[in-house]
Order: sequence, then C-alpha cells, then structure tokens
Amino acid sequence: MSTIVCPEHPSPVADAEALRKACQGWGTDEKAIISIIGRRNATQRKLIRQAYEDLYQEDLLKRLESELSGDFEKAVYRWILDPEDRDAVLLNVAMKQTPIDYRVIVEISCISSPEELLAIKRAYQIRYKHSLEEDLAQHTTGDIRKACNNFILFSKFLVGLVSIYRYKGEEINAKLANSEADILHKAVAQKAFNHEDVIRIITTRSKAQVLATLNHYKDDHGSSVTKHLRDDPCSEDYLSAVRTAIRCINDHHKYYEKIIRHALNKPGTDEDSLTRVVVTRAEKDLKEIKELYHKRNSVSLDHAVSKDISGDYKAFLLTLLGNEID
Amino acid sequence: MSTIVCPEHPSPVADAEALRKACQGWGTDEKAIISIIGRRNATQRKLIRQAYEDLYQEDLLKRLESELSGDFEKAVYRWILDPEDRDAVLLNVAMKQTPIDYRVIVEISCISSPEELLAIKRAYQIRYKHSLEEDLAQHTTGDIRKACNNFILFSKFLVGLVSIYRYKGEEINAKLANSEADILHKAVAQKAFNHEDVIRIITTRSKAQVLATLNHYKDDHGSSVTKHLRDDPCSEDYLSAVRTAIRCINDHHKYYEKIIRHALNKPGTDEDSLTRVVVTRAEKDLKEIKELYHKRNSVSLDHAVSKDISGDYKAFLLTLLGNEID
Repeated sequence: MSTIVCPEHPSPVADAEALRKACQGWGTDEKAIISIIGRRNATQRKLIRQAYEDLYQEDLLKRLESELSGDFEKAVYRWILDPEDRDAVLLNVAMKQTPIDYRVIVEISCISSPEELLAIKRAYQIRYKHSLEEDLAQHTTGDIRKACNNFILFSKFLVGLVSIYRYKGEEINAKLANSEADILHKAVAQKAFNHEDVIRIITTRSKAQVLATLNHYKDDHGSSVTKHLRDDPCSEDYLSAVRTAIRCINDHHKYYEKIIRHALNKPGTDEDSLTRVVVTRAEKDLKEIKELYHKRNSVSLDHAVSKDISGDYKAFLLTLLGNEID
Repeated sequence: MSTIVCPEHPSPVADAEALRKACQGWGTDEKAIISIIGRRNATQRKLIRQAYEDLYQEDLLKRLESELSGDFEKAVYRWILDPEDRDAVLLNVAMKQTPIDYRVIVEISCISSPEELLAIKRAYQIRYKHSLEEDLAQHTTGDIRKACNNFILFSKFLVGLVSIYRYKGEEINAKLANSEADILHKAVAQKAFNHEDVIRIITTRSKAQVLATLNHYKDDHGSSVTKHLRDDPCSEDYLSAVRTAIRCINDHHKYYEKIIRHALNKPGTDEDSLTRVVVTRAEKDLKEIKELYHKRNSVSLDHAVSKDISGDYKAFLLTLLGNEID
C-alpha cells in the first residue's frame, strides 16, 4: 500500500501557482514545495507540471532543479517524474556507473510487471533515442573486454532480464519445476560455470514458475539456491546479480527492506539507495516495506530516517513516508 | 502493397452462412470457400469467424480443418488466423522442428516492427501459456547439450532477436556505425568466435543503425559482411542465422523473393515456405515481392505458382496473389 497522503481533488492550477510563489523572490520556500508535491500522486503531479507549463511557459522540473540542491534536489527530481520515466532514468544512471550498479537493473527488471517493464522501455526510448537493451548490452560488453570471461555471463544475465517479456500467468508446471530445480543444482554443484541453463531459467520463466522451481530446490536440497551461488571470486558480480534477482522475484518487500537497512546502517548513509526505494515504492508498497523494517529492526523506519538524515531532504522523505511535517 | 482483392463492406453473416453451406452435405465446396475467405482482409475474416460462432456455436476454423486436407487445409488455417496469432503458431512450429527452422524465427523477429513483434509475443502467451522467449531458450538450450559449443551463440542470437524491443527511430549515429563496422570486421576476420559483439550489434541496435553499420562495412571492406560470415563448419547454423537476419533487415522483399524462388525450384516444391510467404505477406507487401520475383526470374510469380502446384491449394494461393479464379 501507498504511504503518501493525497487530497482527493487538488487544483493543479492552484498547486502550480503555489509552487511558483515558493520559487520566487529571495530564497526558496522548501516547506511549501514539500507540502504540495509530497502529497500528490503521479497523476496529480503530472497535471501540476502541465498546468505550470501552461501558466508560465517553463518546465517546473527545470525550475525546481535550479532552486534546490543536493540529495533533496535529487529526490524531488526523481519523485516528480512519471514512474516509468523515473525508472528509465534510474536504469540509465545505473548502467553508466563504473562498476555498473547492477542492483538497480536487476530490481527494476525483476520487480516490475511485464507491462510496467514495457512502459519503462518505451519511456527509455523516448528519452534516450536508443533501446534499453542496446545501451545495457553495449555498457556490459565494455566490461567483458576489460575483465574475465565470466563477465559474459554477467552481461548475458542482465540483458536477458531487461529483454524478456515474461509470461505473467499464475499457473505452474510442477514437473518442469522439478526438472529445472535439478538443472540448477547440477550447475551450482559442479561450479563448472555451465550457467547457460541458470540464466535461461531465471531470465525467461514466468515468476510463478521460477518460484516453484526455487521451492523445489529448497525441498530437495535443504537450503535456498542463493546459499549455493557463492564463493567464486572470479564471477562474484555475476553470482551476486543472480542472487539479487532471486531475492527480488522471491519477496521484493524483504529485498527492499534490506536495501534500506543497509543504506541507513552504512557510515554516512547511502542516500541514493534510500531515495530510490522511498521514491519508487511510496505509491506502491512502501507501507509493507515499513512494516517489515519495523519488525526486523525493532525501530520504525520513520524514526530511523529522521535520526539518520537531516534538513529538507529529511522533511521530504518523511512526508513521502506518510508523516505530517509542519 | 496487398495483393488480395476485397469487397468494401461484405456481410459477415452472409459470409458465415455461405461458408456453412459450402461445408454441408456431400463433399465440400472448396471453390466457394476460396472465393470468400481468399477475398477478405484480416478484420473481415475475424468478423466472419465471430458471426459463424454466433450463428452455429461452432468454431469455423475447426470446421474447415475437418473439411479440408493437405497443403490447402494448412494454408487456409494459417490464413484465417489473426496475423499475430498466425506468427505465434509459425514460431512455435519452427522451434519444435529438429533441427530448429531458424529462418522462420529470424524472419519474423527481424521483419516485424517492434509493436508487431510485441503483439506476436502477447498472442504467443495467450495461446501457449508460456513466453516465446522461454520456449525458444528451452528448445535451443536442448541443442547446446547435444552439439558443439557454438550452439551457445546460435541460441543466444535467436533468443536475442525475439527478446529485443528495438528502438524504431530513423536517426542514426554515424560515428557508432563506423566503430561497430570495425568491430564486426575484427570479429569476422579473426574467426575467433569472439562473436559477443556481433550478436549484440545485430540483435539490439535499431534497424536503421544496423543498416548504417552494414553500409560502413561495405564501404570499408569492399563487400557485404554476409560474404565474410562463412566457411566455418562448426558454426554453420549460427553463421547462417546471422546472414539471414542481415538479409531480412537489409531488404526483406529481396529476402522473401529468394525464399519463394528456392521453394518453387526445389524438387517437389517446398510448400510450407511458399504458403508461409504468400499467407503472411498477402495483406502487406506481396505485390512488391511479386514484382521482384518477376524481375529476377523473367516469369511472373502467378505463372510459376500455377505451373508448380495444383488443385485447391493452387486456386487458393492464386486468389491470395490477386487472381480471379472461376
């Protein structure tokens, strides 16, 4: 469930005017900005951007970028974008990093529904005039040349994940789950990097089918396959990407809870990860993630966030987390 | 341009009644069936199937299957299906053959627009309750186990082609085309099977960009890359699939002309290929393919077809080719 608190029928024109006022004169009224955009859903924000453009012949996003700064600016920028456009930006930024931030690529491709992923690919093409697949393939092939042969697996795995238009039916084939659990076990046990099948199973099967296979694996071998996909220094990135994908498919709330926990526990805080999870999940399931966080850490996420970060950035994230900030 | 001759507003109910009559009593009136369905476009055929179902609580397709036989039945069956559903069936049949009929997979994935390919994937999922990608990956991974290592390239190439949601913009990056033409040349010249880049370029770049790269290759090296992708017995299937993809992207009318030419020239005729091209292109660009055929073979396609095949099958294909059969 969503954590943001939105009025039912806010006036986009009144919102645009208030935002204009908050950006004019000496200094910026960050509080006013937060209290508006932190309490509007994606459709409402889109209407505000449109109204702002109509009224002032100016892109609200560009204006806010020039008024704000630091982590606060970044969070506002990501929040205001349409969700599919935001994910396209996150993917582009992640693949351009050195080393590639594969977590973002894995989580967006594995957690989005097939239709959502398709919308993200369309948004990516509109924004970057390339396909997501070609850019990712190019960036990861670059890595292959530099590094050991197992980067071929890494590249193939990531490109496979973003390329697939998965079947979303819930029906599963138990016999197939059984035989593919065996295939996984053989690939993992041999450590022979005959991972073509591992990649095929995780990147192409429906999520329901992957889950059934993972469950069979657990039943047959006493522990999760992620426990066995370890301890090979040469293919650490590839194995880590596979483990991430399995976690995302298996229970993405738990996955996000862990990302937030690590982001907050890191000395100095990993603001990028924190922002990413809060901004991308606020309208979807941040409530469930908050509950898991509380259960796992014996402290509420609101409390942890307000202890760890500060200023307008803190006020904004707390608003997205559903708090009244005044 | 289309070759079929359709009335503007035929009555689906009258058509359904006439088809019912043609299927009743002693024998089947094949001529009547051909004169109706051979002169209706995809939308009109869909309405006939719907009207037939409403009137007689029976699937027209099943009825025709039980009334007709041989190549004629196959051609009618394929023709009546919605275009995206037909392509889904063609793909499924092609991948289940031993060896895989990769030509069909390459041509459908490379010649369809990104939106058409997406519609085919949706139709595939509705019909088979799997994704196209997972079935193809499974069938081609089967081959890998049986055969030499280069089947990994073969599988990766085919799965890449059907997976990609290509960028369809016409703008190209000339610098990139230049550098990727060099990459292709190095991969081809070395014959070292460092083909990751070849696969990446052909399967993920926009068609306009692939064409620009192929043109650069020709300018720099004096001949088409397809001429250099040869003479390796171990990876013949893979190289042949790459050549096919390049031909499909480069000029698919020319490609189809060649398929038809070979189908007709083969001793005994390759009816499956002939049917496939006529049925899948009749409403799209069969006119252009006919013109190319005439130019290349100094005989009209209608003439060649009527010399090579016979009976109802011949009458049906000639109708789809735009002839009046009475």
